Amino acid sequence: VRKARYIDGQTGRIDPADRGLAYGDGLFETIAIRRGLVRYLDFHLERLAAGCARLHIDCPPKAELEGKIRQAAGVFERGTIKLILTRGTGPRGYAPPRPATPTIILLADPDERRFESALAVVTLRTRLSEHEVLAGIKHLCRLEQVLGRLELDQLDADEGLMATTRGTVIGGTSRNLFAVFGSEIKTPDLTLAGIEGVMRRAVLAGAAEAGYKADVTVLSEADLRAADEIFMTNALVGIQSVTRLDERPLDRFSAAQQLRFVLGLDNAG
Amino acid sequence: VRKARYIDGQTGRIDPADRGLAYGDGLFETIAIRRGLVRYLDFHLERLAAGCARLHIDCPPKAELEGKIRQAAGVFERGTIKLILTRGTGPRGYAPPRPATPTIILLADPDERRFESALAVVTLRTRLSEHEVLAGIKHLCRLEQVLGRLELDQLDADEGLMATTRGTVIGGTSRNLFAVFGSEIKTPDLTLAGIEGVMRRAVLAGAAEAGYKADVTVLSEADLRAADEIFMTNALVGIQSVTRLDERPLDRFSAAQQLRFVLGLDNAG
Repeated sequence: VRKARYIDGQTGRIDPADRGLAYGDGLFETIAIRRGLVRYLDFHLERLAAGCARLHIDCPPKAELEGKIRQAAGVFERGTIKLILTRGTGPRGYAPPRPATPTIILLADPDERRFESALAVVTLRTRLSEHEVLAGIKHLCRLEQVLGRLELDQLDADEGLMATTRGTVIGGTSRNLFAVFGSEIKTPDLTLAGIEGVMRRAVLAGAAEAGYKADVTVLSEADLRAADEIFMTNALVGIQSVTRLDERPLDRFSAAQQLRFVLGLDNAG
Repeated sequence: VRKARYIDGQTGRIDPADRGLAYGDGLFETIAIRRGLVRYLDFHLERLAAGCARLHIDCPPKAELEGKIRQAAGVFERGTIKLILTRGTGPRGYAPPRPATPTIILLADPDERRFESALAVVTLRTRLSEHEVLAGIKHLCRLEQVLGRLELDQLDADEGLMATTRGTVIGGTSRNLFAVFGSEIKTPDLTLAGIEGVMRRAVLAGAAEAGYKADVTVLSEADLRAADEIFMTNALVGIQSVTRLDERPLDRFSAAQQLRFVLGLDNAG
């Protein structure tokens, strides 16, 4: 493994020939610092390594990344770390240079935002494409989410629900989706689209302790309409209850509350 | 329209918060300089403007871009200009800043490469996803082409043929595809995937003069196997004849030759 090139996201600058810029050829992680601790760091690093494997990028050793991230995290009580890992610079053309030296950009900021524990959600017309090799990982090619967010900005809601071009529900523009049916919590299968969120993984791991059976499955919009409770998650906001989906108000929040308790999350992300 | 921020790709550096890097939120053009002239500049600028419209990015005025590109092109007799246009820098999150100031990176190089007029092509397993809003334009999210190119690098061929996840043939990793059937030239419809190449547009415009009827249509792998002649195109290589597709040798090159003549292209791109 070649040594990665680390760049301070606050003061450093990127080479215009970096393949992250040229082709979206890389991955990223957005990591929460809460109560002075880097939350779910292992989950983030495991997803990053999985993404590198999928894209055939040499992932730096876990211990090295962990050290750099903890160093960047500094002494913030509450903050956000953004890590971007690209294949590195290269000549023009899609063919990756061999060997390539990955570029790693680290940016840590204090972040005092308190996230609402409730979300109004609308179904978006913007679709997600299906691609088995690119699904699940947090790669840099995120134009579909940007387009979804542009559509959402015209609407009166906090988050937009996105489905694939074939109509399978995947999640929000930047959140994973959970639907509660009695004592079962279902979340969309992300084999063909979507990002396997770190908080999604935590929820799946903690569901049993919260008294629920967790199930990863294909969900349609009709399934969602029959759900008792819906909540959404990401690494920064934690777990947020959906209080409205399109025209339907939702008034059950107990699974979300129970899971926040089990995972030690507060109401503000 | 706000003024764009222009960056010299040779000496300039990119802000790590640029959305081109963060989300592939931008477009690019790769433009040939031949005999001291910027080839098909109007086609490139029209595609760029179409891409900006699709992504809701404020495109700088055509005259301004044309001036900057001609300035960057300098006095090279033969060269390549790469232009990257991103939505600009922004805070974390998919929501585009409003207003945004586009970043434009311009890199011009002398490029003495002479491209082969013949290609051996293999069908790749790597697929292209289908997405109507993102198809056709030359956006920065190109991981599917990178994956295709990684697969091709393991194979003994010059270019790889890519189909969508539903099996519709689209083209090469970096080239458009044409198949000749008698006096008809067919090229894949790119409504759901692929990039509408500048040289593809030139071929479609010049086909009648070359004595062919041009048709944009859906092509399957079976259709391709029945073609009399196959050729591929891009802005740099011009028109290249396919001399082998998987195990099948191809020995007709007259449509490609005729089109090169009509378009005033030489055999070396």
